[in-house]
Amino acid sequence: MFTTPTLLLDEAKCKANIQRMAEKAQKHHIGFRPHFKTHQSLDVGQWFKQAGVTQITVSSFEMAHYFSSQWKDITVAFPVNVLEIDRINALAKRIKLNVLVESLESVDFLKTHLDAEIGFFIKIDVGYHRTGVQPDDTDLLDTILQAADGADRLRFCGFLGHAGHAYKCTHRDDVMAIHKQSQQIMIALKKRYNERYPGLAISLGDTPTCSLADDFTGIDEIRPGNFALYDLMQHQIGSCEIENIAVAMRCPIVALHPERRDMVIYGGGVHFSKEQLKTLQDTVVFGRVVESLDSGGWGDVVKDMYVKNLSQEHGIVTGPTVELQKYKVGDRITVLPVHACLTADLMKRYVLTGDLEAIFMMGSKHQCL
Amino acid sequence: MFTTPTLLLDEAKCKANIQRMAEKAQKHHIGFRPHFKTHQSLDVGQWFKQAGVTQITVSSFEMAHYFSSQWKDITVAFPVNVLEIDRINALAKRIKLNVLVESLESVDFLKTHLDAEIGFFIKIDVGYHRTGVQPDDTDLLDTILQAADGADRLRFCGFLGHAGHAYKCTHRDDVMAIHKQSQQIMIALKKRYNERYPGLAISLGDTPTCSLADDFTGIDEIRPGNFALYDLMQHQIGSCEIENIAVAMRCPIVALHPERRDMVIYGGGVHFSKEQLKTLQDTVVFGRVVESLDSGGWGDVVKDMYVKNLSQEHGIVTGPTVELQKYKVGDRITVLPVHACLTADLMKRYVLTGDLEAIFMMGSKHQCL
Repeated sequence: MFTTPTLLLDEAKCKANIQRMAEKAQKHHIGFRPHFKTHQSLDVGQWFKQAGVTQITVSSFEMAHYFSSQWKDITVAFPVNVLEIDRINALAKRIKLNVLVESLESVDFLKTHLDAEIGFFIKIDVGYHRTGVQPDDTDLLDTILQAADGADRLRFCGFLGHAGHAYKCTHRDDVMAIHKQSQQIMIALKKRYNERYPGLAISLGDTPTCSLADDFTGIDEIRPGNFALYDLMQHQIGSCEIENIAVAMRCPIVALHPERRDMVIYGGGVHFSKEQLKTLQDTVVFGRVVESLDSGGWGDVVKDMYVKNLSQEHGIVTGPTVELQKYKVGDRITVLPVHACLTADLMKRYVLTGDLEAIFMMGSKHQCL
Repeated sequence: MFTTPTLLLDEAKCKANIQRMAEKAQKHHIGFRPHFKTHQSLDVGQWFKQAGVTQITVSSFEMAHYFSSQWKDITVAFPVNVLEIDRINALAKRIKLNVLVESLESVDFLKTHLDAEIGFFIKIDVGYHRTGVQPDDTDLLDTILQAADGADRLRFCGFLGHAGHAYKCTHRDDVMAIHKQSQQIMIALKKRYNERYPGLAISLGDTPTCSLADDFTGIDEIRPGNFALYDLMQHQIGSCEIENIAVAMRCPIVALHPERRDMVIYGGGVHFSKEQLKTLQDTVVFGRVVESLDSGGWGDVVKDMYVKNLSQEHGIVTGPTVELQKYKVGDRITVLPVHACLTADLMKRYVLTGDLEAIFMMGSKHQCL
C-alpha cells in the first residue's frame, strides 16, 4: 500500500460535496442528473444513491454500459456517435437512454437504425463554441425536430447546454455572467418550443455555474460532475474551497535536490495527466502539495510548494527550503491534482483515507485487458 | 472495430524504426537497450527480439514485472523507489535487474534490504536538471561508490544519463550540441573512475540524440524508446520524418461546424493525453490530421488541418473549408499524436494497420481491475 503513486479519496469530503449539490437542486426544485465521467466508479455512485440520485449523465456509451448494471436512466452527454448504433440499441433495450443530437444527419440515421426507444436532447451552443446548434439557428432546430416528429423511437426531451467557457473564469462574477447568459438562451428556446413540445426540459450543467449560481429559474435539470471531487482548477475558478477537494495523490519521494530547491517524486503524466494550471501570478502548476496526515488524509496547502513539471513517471516538486528539508528519500508526499477527472481516469482506483484498506475501483474503460 | 477512438500501429514503419536503431547501435559497436515505456507491449517487444535485442529499459518496477515474463535483463531507468523493495527483491531473484541511484540514502537502504544481487547505475545530470548527481560532485559520487563497495548484493554498472533537454530543441544542431556535451561529461567520468571500476559502462539515451547523432565515442549503450513509434513532438525536434511515425488515432466524427471551420471528433484528453505542441508559428496543436487510407493505414499530412483543442472525450479539428467539406458525421478521421508514449499509455491496445483484426495488447499498468 502506498509504495507507488496512490489516489486518495476522502469519503467525508466527497459525500459532503454530493449532499450539498443534491440539496441545492432540491431547494430549487430542479432535477439532479450528476455527470459520472469524473469519478467513473460504481462504488462512488452508491454515495449518490444515498443522496437520492436516480438519474445520471456519462460521456460515452462505454461508460453508460458500465453504469447500466446499477443505473437505469442515463444521458450520454456527447454528440451521438452513430458508429456505436449496436451498443445504443443494446442499451436502449435495457435502460432509459438519452442521447444528444445536433444535426439532421444524426436524427435521420437514428430513425432508420433504432430497435428501441431513446430520448434525445438537442445540444445548444450556449457560448462555449465547442459543439451544439447555435441558439438562433431556428431553421436547423425546426428541421431536426420535424425529422424526429415522425419517428416512433425518438422521443424529444428538450434542450441541453454546457457552459464549458466557465472553466476559463477566475472570478465568481464572470461565472455568474456566463450562467445568466446560458439561462436566457435556454429560457428563450423553451418559450419558443414549449407549446409544440409541452414538458420539454432544459438541462444545463457544469461545475462552476452549478456551484456558484443561486438562480435556476427556467432550468429543469443540472448535470455537474467534477463537484463530487473538485480540484485545483475548480478552486482557481472559485467553484470551491481548497478544503472541498476530495482527492489527492500520495507519491513516493525518490530524489532530493536541495541545490535546485526541488525534489523528484514518483508521479508523472501517466498518473496526474499533463493538465496544467497557470496561476494569476503566471506560474505553471501541475499540482499543489498539502500536509500529509498520519490518519491517511491530508491537511492544509503548503505555501509555495507545488509540482512544477511532469514527465512520464517523474514529477518535480519545488518549494521553500524549510519545507523541502522536512522530507527524505522514501517518504511520501501528498499532492492535490489540477484536474480530478483526468487523474481519476488514469489512476483507475481510489484508496479511502478513512479506511486505508478499502479500494474503490473504476471500470468504464479497459475493464480487463 | 473503429466505432470508438482506435490507436493504429503501422507494423512496417515500427519494424523499420527498430531495425534502423538496432543497426546504428551495431555499426557503432555499442549496446542497445531500448526503453519499453513507450510501447509497453509484450507483442511489440517481440519485434525487438527479431532485431536481436536482449536487454531492455523500463521506467517502473511494475513495468519490469510485466516484461519479466519474456525479458531477463532489465534496467529500471528511474531513481530507485525504495518503498518497492519487496518487488525489487522478487524481480532480482528471477532476472538480471539494474536500478538507478543518486543518493547515499538509497544505497544504504539497498545494502541492508536486498535479498538478491542487483546492478546499479549512478544517475548523472547531463544538463536536463530533472534528476541525477551533478557530474562535478565527485564527493557525492565517491561517497556513493564507497558505500556500495562493501555491499555483496550491489554491483556497480556505471554512469547513466538522459538528455531530456534535447526535447526542447527544434533544430538538429541544438540536439547535436546537447549530445556532445553529455558525451564529454560521461567520458570525463569514465576516465576518472575506470581504473577503480574497470569495465564500467556509460549509458545514454533519448530519442532525439540517438536518432540524430553519428558519434558515440565513449558510450557503451544507448536507451532510446520513443523512436519505435515516433510522434509529432519528435518530428518538430527533427528526430524523424513524418513518414516514420508508426502510430495514429482513428476517431469517429460526431459533429460538423463549417461556420466555425471546425468539426468535433470522438477522441479527447483520455485518449490522446493533454500533451500539446507549440509550433514555430506559435499555434498550439494536439494532433495533426493525415489522409485515411482504405487499406487501414494513413497517408500524407493534410495541410493546416489539426486538433486545436481537447476536452475529456471531445477533440476539435480545424482545417481549410475544402478539407472539412470532405467529411460527414459518422466518418472517421486519422490523427497523428503529439506524444506517442502518453497516447499509447492511455489507449492500452493497438490495432495493426496491415491486419485489422490483430490487436496488440499492453499491460504494464492496471492489467485487470
